[in-house]
Amino acid sequence: MSTIIDQLTDLFAKLPGIGPRQARRFVYYLLKERGGVGARMSHLISQLKSEVSQCKECYRFHVDKSCRICVDPNRSQTSLMVVLNDADLESIERAHVHDGQVFVLGGYVSLLEDEKTGKPKYARLTELTARIGKMHQLTEIILAFAANQDGDHTAYYLRDYLMQPGLTITTLGRGLSTGSELEYADADTIKSALLGRH
Amino acid sequence: MSTIIDQLTDLFAKLPGIGPRQARRFVYYLLKERGGVGARMSHLISQLKSEVSQCKECYRFHVDKSCRICVDPNRSQTSLMVVLNDADLESIERAHVHDGQVFVLGGYVSLLEDEKTGKPKYARLTELTARIGKMHQLTEIILAFAANQDGDHTAYYLRDYLMQPGLTITTLGRGLSTGSELEYADADTIKSALLGRH
Amino acid sequence: MSTIIDQLTDLFAKLPGIGPRQARRFVYYLLKERGGVGARMSHLISQLKSEVSQCKECYRFHVDKSCRICVDPNRSQTSLMVVLNDADLESIERAHVHDGQVFVLGGYVSLLEDEKTGKPKYARLTELTARIGKMHQLTEIILAFAANQDGDHTAYYLRDYLMQPGLTITTLGRGLSTGSELEYADADTIKSALLGRH
Amino acid sequence: MSTIIDQLTDLFAKLPGIGPRQARRFVYYLLKERGGVGARMSHLISQLKSEVSQCKECYRFHVDKSCRICVDPNRSQTSLMVVLNDADLESIERAHVHDGQVFVLGGYVSLLEDEKTGKPKYARLTELTARIGKMHQLTEIILAFAANQDGDHTAYYLRDYLMQPGLTITTLGRGLSTGSELEYADADTIKSALLGRH
Repeated sequence: MSTIIDQLTDLFAKLPGIGPRQARRFVYYLLKERGGVGARMSHLISQLKSEVSQCKECYRFHVDKSCRICVDPNRSQTSLMVVLNDADLESIERAHVHDGQVFVLGGYVSLLEDEKTGKPKYARLTELTARIGKMHQLTEIILAFAANQDGDHTAYYLRDYLMQPGLTITTLGRGLSTGSELEYADADTIKSALLGRH
Repeated sequence: MSTIIDQLTDLFAKLPGIGPRQARRFVYYLLKERGGVGARMSHLISQLKSEVSQCKECYRFHVDKSCRICVDPNRSQTSLMVVLNDADLESIERAHVHDGQVFVLGGYVSLLEDEKTGKPKYARLTELTARIGKMHQLTEIILAFAANQDGDHTAYYLRDYLMQPGLTITTLGRGLSTGSELEYADADTIKSALLGRH
Repeated sequence: MSTIIDQLTDLFAKLPGIGPRQARRFVYYLLKERGGVGARMSHLISQLKSEVSQCKECYRFHVDKSCRICVDPNRSQTSLMVVLNDADLESIERAHVHDGQVFVLGGYVSLLEDEKTGKPKYARLTELTARIGKMHQLTEIILAFAANQDGDHTAYYLRDYLMQPGLTITTLGRGLSTGSELEYADADTIKSALLGRH
Repeated sequence: MSTIIDQLTDLFAKLPGIGPRQARRFVYYLLKERGGVGARMSHLISQLKSEVSQCKECYRFHVDKSCRICVDPNRSQTSLMVVLNDADLESIERAHVHDGQVFVLGGYVSLLEDEKTGKPKYARLTELTARIGKMHQLTEIILAFAANQDGDHTAYYLRDYLMQPGLTITTLGRGLSTGSELEYADADTIKSALLGRH
C-alpha cells in the first residue's frame, strides 16, 4: 500500500513538465512550510472548477460573470481568431494586436489521428462551426497556430473544413522571429521572411 | 482583486523550481483534466500534514505509527548520520550503505547567518544535542552533507559544536564521482581522490 | 618564454567560439594524429588567402576565376540583397529564394559606434554606394539582416543612407519562425505574424 | 572538385568537438582576419611535431630538451602514476598533489576491444612494462583514470596485468566531487563517500 507521500508525489508528477523527483520535492516543501501554503492550495484547487467558467462562445476559461472578450462591444465582429488553448490566447491578448473575436480550439488535429479515424478527438470542430454560423458579419477567420507540424496540419485541415463563400481564411505570417540570425535559419523561414519583406 | 486563476498560479509558483509561467500551466491543466486529479490532489494536500508525522528522534517525516528507521532493532546504535533533509536521507537509504541511526538537521548553518547572528536559524542544533545525549553507545557521528560551501561550513561548525571525548566525527569522502573525467576535475577533487586512493 | 604548445593554443583560442581548454585539445589532437591532418591543415591555411578571391562587386569570397553569382546572366539586375557576411549569404543561397544580385556588407552599423563616431567601422558603405550606382535597372534593395538590435539598427541606418527616388528598400518579414509556439512568442513577433497573415 | 574552402572546412571538422558549421566559420574567420593569425597558425602547425618531443620514459609531449618531470631529482622514484593522456596529466600537475613519476598510457583498454581481440590497441602496455622494469625503487602504481566504464575496465585490466610481489596498485578514491549534492548522487558515489569518510 502506497503512502500519502507516494500518492501525492504521483499526482504532482501528472502536472505538465514535472518528473517524480521534483514531484517529491513539492511534497516535502508542503510538509515543511509553515505559512499555510498547503491549506490555501488545497482550498483553491477544490474551488477551481466551480469558480471558473468556460465561455459557451469562445471556450476560454474565465472567472467573471460573463466572458470579458465575448461581451466587449468594442471588439470587431468581422474577424475570428482561432487559437489552440488559453495560454496561447493570453500571449496574443498581451500583445494587443487582435481586436476581433476569439475561439479556443482545445486541441490540434494531428496528422496521425486524422488518418486513423478521420475524426479529430480534441478539436472543438462542431462548436467552432456553430460559432461561425452565428457570426453574421464575419469576413475573416485567422488560424493562429504554432509553426510546427501539428499546427500546420490543423490549419490545412481547417482551411478545407471551414471554407465558404465570402470568408477569408488566413494563417499567421512566418519569418524571422525576434533574435533570429540568418546563418542558423532554415530554408522555410528564410523563404517566408523574403516573401513577407516590406 | 486577483482571480482564483491568478491566486492559484501564485501559490504554485511557490513550489521549488516553479516559475509563474509553469505555475499558470498547472492551473490550466487542472481546469481541463477530467480524471479527478484536482479533487484527489486537493484532498491529499489537505490531509498531508495530519497523516504524516515527524519522528521525535530523527525528525524525518514518516506515515507509519512509529519511525521505521528509529525502531529498527537491527540498526546499530554506535553511529549517527546527520543529513540535511528527507530527500538526502532517501538517497542514502536507497544506497543501502548506512545501518546506523540518522538525524535530519533541517537546514545548513550558512556562513553568513553564522557570522551575523551567531545562531543558526534552521538547523536543529538543540534537538541534535538532545539526541546525542540519549545515545549511550554512540562512537561516531557522520556528517553527510553536500560538497559545497554551505555543507562544508555546517560540517566545520558541527565538528566544533559536537566535539566530546570518545566520539569520532567524520565527513563524507571526496573524490571522483561516477562519470567524472580527470581533465575537468578541480584541484580539490583531484587531491581528495589521490588521498583516498585504495 | 611560452612554448609552441602554448603559442598554438593561444592562436586556436582566437577562432570563433573556442576557449583555451578546447584550443589546447586541438594541439594535442594534432600532436597525436598520424593521418597527415596537421600537414594538410598547415598547407591549406597558408594557401587560403591566395587561392580565395574576394569579389570586387559583391565582396563575397570565392575560389572561381570570377564570382559565380555576379556573372550569372540568369540572375535579375533589378534587385540587390545586402547581407552581413558569407555565412548568411550561404544560408540564403541554400534556400533558393533570391535570384537577384547580392552584396556582403562585412559588418553591422552598431548603435554605439554610430553615436560615438558617426562613422560605421566595418560596414562597406562606400563600396555599397558604388555598386548601387552601377546597377541601372535596380528597383529594390533587400536588407537581409538578423532580427536583433544590430541588424535592426543597420537596416534603420541604411534605409536613410541609401534612399533615392525610384528605389524601394525592404527588410525581411518577421513572424513565427519554424518550430515557434505562440505561448512563448514575444509581442513583436506575434504582431508581425498577425500583420503578415495570408 | 571541392574548393579549398570546403577542404579546409573538412579538416577543421576533424578537430575534437567541431562540426561542419563551426569549421566553416573558422575558414571565414581566417579569410577575414588581417592580423596574421592564419600565417602564424600555419607556421606553428607545420613546426609542431618537430618542435615537440614525446618523452621516451613517460610518453608525455614536451618542448624542452628533456622531459621536465622525468629528470626532476626531487620527484620520488617509489611511485608511478599512470594517466590516460596529456590533458589529464596537466590537470593533475596543476593540483600539485603527486610528486612521483608519471606515465601517459595513450588509450584506455576498452571492454569491447579486450573481449574481441584480447589485445588493447592504443594503450602502451609494452612501454609501461618496460618503464616499470627500470624503476627499482617502485613500491606503488597509481592508476589515475576517469570514473567511467572505460576507466574502470582499464584499471581492472591493469591491476591484473601489472601485479607483482612488492608492488601496491591503487586507483583514485571515489566520493562526492566538489559541488555534488546528496539528493542527486548515485548509490556508488554515496557508498564510496561513506567508505572514504574521515
